[in-house]
Amino acid sequence: MTTDERLTTLEDVALRAVIERALIAHHDSDRVGIAAAVIFEDKIIATAENEVHQTHNPTQHAEIVALRLATEALGQDDLSGCILISTLQPCEMCLAATRFAGIDRIIFSAQQENVAAKYFVFPKLKIADFCSAGTPFSYVGGVREEEVLHLYENAAE
Amino acid sequence: MTTDERLTTLEDVALRAVIERALIAHHDSDRVGIAAAVIFEDKIIATAENEVHQTHNPTQHAEIVALRLATEALGQDDLSGCILISTLQPCEMCLAATRFAGIDRIIFSAQQENVAAKYFVFPKLKIADFCSAGTPFSYVGGVREEEVLHLYENAAE
Repeated sequence: MTTDERLTTLEDVALRAVIERALIAHHDSDRVGIAAAVIFEDKIIATAENEVHQTHNPTQHAEIVALRLATEALGQDDLSGCILISTLQPCEMCLAATRFAGIDRIIFSAQQENVAAKYFVFPKLKIADFCSAGTPFSYVGGVREEEVLHLYENAAE
Repeated sequence: MTTDERLTTLEDVALRAVIERALIAHHDSDRVGIAAAVIFEDKIIATAENEVHQTHNPTQHAEIVALRLATEALGQDDLSGCILISTLQPCEMCLAATRFAGIDRIIFSAQQENVAAKYFVFPKLKIADFCSAGTPFSYVGGVREEEVLHLYENAAE
């Protein structure tokens, strides 16, 4: 598998790590196979997975948990300069949270158009719409998508 | 002050309660004057305020905290049938979180067009855009707005 030229080596390392975590989580009935990480400078400062089922809290998506861990790692709520990595395109909640945290680069694997509808609540709005609706940010989607798409295609809850 | 005819008595009681909490919080330099509540059937099952500063976590908006407390109160992550009340129009993160939780009625006081830009990250998208971008939900904004607008007009961080 060649590295996607749009990613740095560290970004690809982080993406491979969260994909591995998601694939393992997928085999456990109590876990959701979605994982995320946050990079700051030359380090992965946070990795997390979806905790909605364990916490009975619908806001505990992998990215939200990763953002919290990243703020704890840095000791501040401003994550400017950080990069968010996720196995699945961030939903509208996570995308907004990422922008509030000051993050302006997002890397993800599975893309909205290729996964079940349940992962998004405002499906007529695409990530490009959000990008042009405020201060622009950069994103790279679809990286290593073939490795995770089977996790997110099922339309059942 | 007459009750807004668009609200039930309980909704107005809850809104007055969160406004009171926000006004008090505003006088404390460690707190942000934004508060939210969740109603289920004939009870206010959760009230909360913005905890971003206390937790150094940019996702801990009042609504996110209120949703978590509501799920704890009901013992489940599905908040279908609940009503979200907030002193400030929910940002894009909180709006999406509310919809993921299954809530389809939202009441708020201060409206986006009358507050500082910092409260939203995708300002070109309005709540009506979100409403028409997925399964519709109902919302009532601007209720008792004159009581709280001074809290949110300041453009400074």
